[in-house]
Amino acid sequence: MRILINLSYNGKDFLGFQHQPGERTVQGEIESILSEMHKEFTRIHPASRTDRGVHAMDQYIHFDTHLDITPSKWSYILNTRLPDDIYIKNSKEVSTDFHVRYAKSKKTYRYKMYTSEPNPFLHGLAVHIDKKLDIEKMKIAAQKFEGTHDCTSFSSAKAVIENKVRHIYRCDIETHNDTIELIITGSGFLYNMVRIITAYLIQVGSGERPDETEEIISAKNRALVPRTAPAEGLYLEKIEYK
Amino acid sequence: MRILINLSYNGKDFLGFQHQPGERTVQGEIESILSEMHKEFTRIHPASRTDRGVHAMDQYIHFDTHLDITPSKWSYILNTRLPDDIYIKNSKEVSTDFHVRYAKSKKTYRYKMYTSEPNPFLHGLAVHIDKKLDIEKMKIAAQKFEGTHDCTSFSSAKAVIENKVRHIYRCDIETHNDTIELIITGSGFLYNMVRIITAYLIQVGSGERPDETEEIISAKNRALVPRTAPAEGLYLEKIEYK
Repeated sequence: MRILINLSYNGKDFLGFQHQPGERTVQGEIESILSEMHKEFTRIHPASRTDRGVHAMDQYIHFDTHLDITPSKWSYILNTRLPDDIYIKNSKEVSTDFHVRYAKSKKTYRYKMYTSEPNPFLHGLAVHIDKKLDIEKMKIAAQKFEGTHDCTSFSSAKAVIENKVRHIYRCDIETHNDTIELIITGSGFLYNMVRIITAYLIQVGSGERPDETEEIISAKNRALVPRTAPAEGLYLEKIEYK
Repeated sequence: MRILINLSYNGKDFLGFQHQPGERTVQGEIESILSEMHKEFTRIHPASRTDRGVHAMDQYIHFDTHLDITPSKWSYILNTRLPDDIYIKNSKEVSTDFHVRYAKSKKTYRYKMYTSEPNPFLHGLAVHIDKKLDIEKMKIAAQKFEGTHDCTSFSSAKAVIENKVRHIYRCDIETHNDTIELIITGSGFLYNMVRIITAYLIQVGSGERPDETEEIISAKNRALVPRTAPAEGLYLEKIEYK
């Protein structure tokens, strides 16, 4: 039986999603509970791997089980054993040809930053920017990412995927009390793409560089956008399935 | 020269304020920077020691220095060296007969809890209560703490102070978006007093016990209030000086 799980986690104290021997990871925490219950190693598959320090409001994982447990009960069973920085929102059975990674159709990320006085209670949860930001300028530049583009200029050099064309449904800046937040929905994202776009928009907002979004996208050259914003402001906000 | 410093810190990743060899403490972090700068051990004195996991929005410390540094510059110097979960709000010179601990006249604490779905982003910052709480009942019980009382019933057995009479200026319950917050201002507090009052008010709000606040205060018997709410919901919110 294949179980699909919807979860959220605070990435601050994890070395990322993916299992790494001897390190505290989201995958490691969940697999160790499942493996103990199954009395054999039980692998989980995530919809999207998140890097060290990155948060998830809405992540999905699946795993296969032969245990006689009502699918909806898995969330309760796991929550009683998991640490407080991971929370299982719900669990259900899916068909064994469903794969959490390949079935998804859209992802939304949010990036949280703030420019007011440094706040120790936002430590690890939002990035402090020590400059004034022109939100209107950032909004205009952000919206230019909407559409279908080759995103080479905004992808890590580590990305080895050949096809770098992605469709961006929405890219916008919102303000919430103290925070300034980039929200971006796409068909998929290249490695570090949201953090590179964020670093670029911060430079535009602070006046360090002009808004040349269209030219940079057309150039397909990462050298034009050398920075990457820190992981701790990034949230995997939503995953949509077909 | 005596320097007074106003600071805030996120207590989540500290083993409390007070220095403990080999452990991460607020005092340890600050003293190690100051001692390095002074080339000799430099002690800081806090207005109020906070326990492991307890936060401070507004704490004060003082220390003595012979270094030729403009008093207001200490905040900048310390912030560049301190970790992100401590923030120095400002620094100024005070007279050498000022003592941060004895000069204070009022303290305010806040205790944050919530009853909605567990939220990994509130982990370490607010306490999840897995019960419905009747806010109105809690408010009525809370306000009965206002006034001058012998607080023996609400103090840890560890408290060895003889005089347990304290004046409570304000004790109330507020709601803020997702959180339910106890706010309490007093002339001083006995050890664990706010956490014991909180645990009692949670029991009143959940219907586990009736509101017998006046009777319990009069009884001067800690056995009547056996619980202590977890440290992570507690914030030292404000310290007032004469």
